[in-house]
Amino acid sequence: MGSVGNSEKTVTGWAARDGSGVLSPYTYTLRNTGPEDVLIKVLYCGICHTDIHQTKNHLGMSKYPMVPGHEVVGEVVEVGGEVSRFAAGETVGAGCIVGSCRECGPCKSNIEQYCNKRIWSYNDVYADGTPTQGGFASHMIVDQKFVVKIPLGLAPEQAAPLLCAGVTVYSPLKHFGLAGSGLRGGVLGLGGVGHMGVRIAKAMGHRVTVISSSERKRAEAVDHLGADAYLVSGDEEEMRTAFDSLDYIIDTVPVLHPLEPYLSLLKVHGKLILMGVINQPLQFITPLVILGRKTISGSFIGSIDETQEMLEFCEERGLTSTIEMVKMDEVNEALERLERNDVRYRFVVDVAGSKLGAA
Amino acid sequence: MGSVGNSEKTVTGWAARDGSGVLSPYTYTLRNTGPEDVLIKVLYCGICHTDIHQTKNHLGMSKYPMVPGHEVVGEVVEVGGEVSRFAAGETVGAGCIVGSCRECGPCKSNIEQYCNKRIWSYNDVYADGTPTQGGFASHMIVDQKFVVKIPLGLAPEQAAPLLCAGVTVYSPLKHFGLAGSGLRGGVLGLGGVGHMGVRIAKAMGHRVTVISSSERKRAEAVDHLGADAYLVSGDEEEMRTAFDSLDYIIDTVPVLHPLEPYLSLLKVHGKLILMGVINQPLQFITPLVILGRKTISGSFIGSIDETQEMLEFCEERGLTSTIEMVKMDEVNEALERLERNDVRYRFVVDVAGSKLGAA
Repeated sequence: MGSVGNSEKTVTGWAARDGSGVLSPYTYTLRNTGPEDVLIKVLYCGICHTDIHQTKNHLGMSKYPMVPGHEVVGEVVEVGGEVSRFAAGETVGAGCIVGSCRECGPCKSNIEQYCNKRIWSYNDVYADGTPTQGGFASHMIVDQKFVVKIPLGLAPEQAAPLLCAGVTVYSPLKHFGLAGSGLRGGVLGLGGVGHMGVRIAKAMGHRVTVISSSERKRAEAVDHLGADAYLVSGDEEEMRTAFDSLDYIIDTVPVLHPLEPYLSLLKVHGKLILMGVINQPLQFITPLVILGRKTISGSFIGSIDETQEMLEFCEERGLTSTIEMVKMDEVNEALERLERNDVRYRFVVDVAGSKLGAA
Repeated sequence: MGSVGNSEKTVTGWAARDGSGVLSPYTYTLRNTGPEDVLIKVLYCGICHTDIHQTKNHLGMSKYPMVPGHEVVGEVVEVGGEVSRFAAGETVGAGCIVGSCRECGPCKSNIEQYCNKRIWSYNDVYADGTPTQGGFASHMIVDQKFVVKIPLGLAPEQAAPLLCAGVTVYSPLKHFGLAGSGLRGGVLGLGGVGHMGVRIAKAMGHRVTVISSSERKRAEAVDHLGADAYLVSGDEEEMRTAFDSLDYIIDTVPVLHPLEPYLSLLKVHGKLILMGVINQPLQFITPLVILGRKTISGSFIGSIDETQEMLEFCEERGLTSTIEMVKMDEVNEALERLERNDVRYRFVVDVAGSKLGAA
């Protein structure tokens, strides 16, 4: 970083320059540390599937250069005059959102992730038009409202994926009344979000069934993650046996898939909770929801309050994510491997331990 | 009726004989009044859209001869030895269901409408294999568990449609936490169920918007039913203005329709509640539920407890249904008119005031 103090700061991150999505070193400036700001030295940053959609312009809304990364754990370097909750030297986190309108219903209810004017951590602009840039960089400046404390009992590198994947499953379980013990839950898809789904649901005292398209992850799900059961969705006999047995299913599949087989697994009042933004319509037949008062719903990451609560829940229960650590110069390979689901279960970039500048 | 007492009873109803769905007089026997049974002289019976599906074999599961009718109000003639809640001379009601397993989760939770072994009031069989027959008949015998009291303040003929159409909207509003005052609700489709939706939601203190495919029912909805607003679903400008404004929508449309326009009308945490069994899959895109934690759910009539509660709610608030009364020899014409939505809003057959036997 060029300088700290009452001036703009020159920092280096790794940015995508076009739809190829290939990241390379990029130097840019951060705003002055304002009264409500926290200047963070990035230690670790997780890699989420959304990073691929954004860097490769899958949604047609990408602006370049783009420094991705929204599972950010770092150390506070300095804070603005109005910041009392954070102090230099503390370990903190930032996630998908760095701003919101503060005035709408969702903002006033502290569920700012549903604010229509939310500002994304990257590939977005602040109110003054300057671009936001994410966590694959030496530093970030984040308004204190959107910063969380990383509890001392959590390893910072393993905490990074909790800031998106972790809260993405924790938030709907709490919101939809599914956090009590004794429930029977399903987790559909065993990627970064799914593996945290199994861990968090188990920690809540649920009997957890992993539902997958193949046998491939059975041992992993049961032995490593502690799932109670494993169901292959293509096995009609196995599926029929499990009809009417689950209180909820966390559906993490990010591509087109039928809903009927999973609605059939739900008990009366069962809830199917979608987490994947899918660019084709999903289908269902109405008797499968009507005859059982079942619900199909969705949930999107979690609020800052829910994120803080989830981090404390994970510390208290000894939960964390399973990660593969990479250096920044391995990030392009990691993105390629993630795209073909070749990761167990989340890549985390060791940002502070990497050489960020051009070779 | 041939006889009352410890023997089978010969009764006359109007039955469909084949997929033409045409009803004509039909004589059959009712079982003896068992210890848990209530023998009911039918006074009035509403006509529901489902009656058309069943009599015309739209679902491919019809058995003939079939006496339809599941919105039954009548007078108690005699009761079995174990029946203490009802006495001869009282006005009672029966609805869609006349039996259930009594042992499953839904039965034990008194939501027997979701029991997988529920027995329909007609076009079904009792445990002993004898067919059930509905309310277009001089008498019915119903297990006391499935009988409700018609409050004295409700006109019996107007109470009949409440037993299906009324509870179909009351039950989900209660179950999904939407019965409090001050909410903003939508009612999609203004038929038998929809018109009770407007009345019940208004009585709960909601601001109610009727959403319809045409201007045709605007005056009716606002002036007669007391809706606060009327929205034409094809008017893009009007729809856009109403984006993000409703806490729930009761969707009574029984045919294929898009869900996206209605999901967009819902606020964060909004609920789209489906009531129509539709024989083609419905579609939606996931961002419309994820970005707002919205739910698509369904609901099926209501329990006996909910039905009793709804009847008392209607009496207390002075609500009732709007009906067109017909005699039994007009029932075929009424079914035809209902099929083309030419009814305001529910036909009720004056069973006791009709000549039921062959001309």
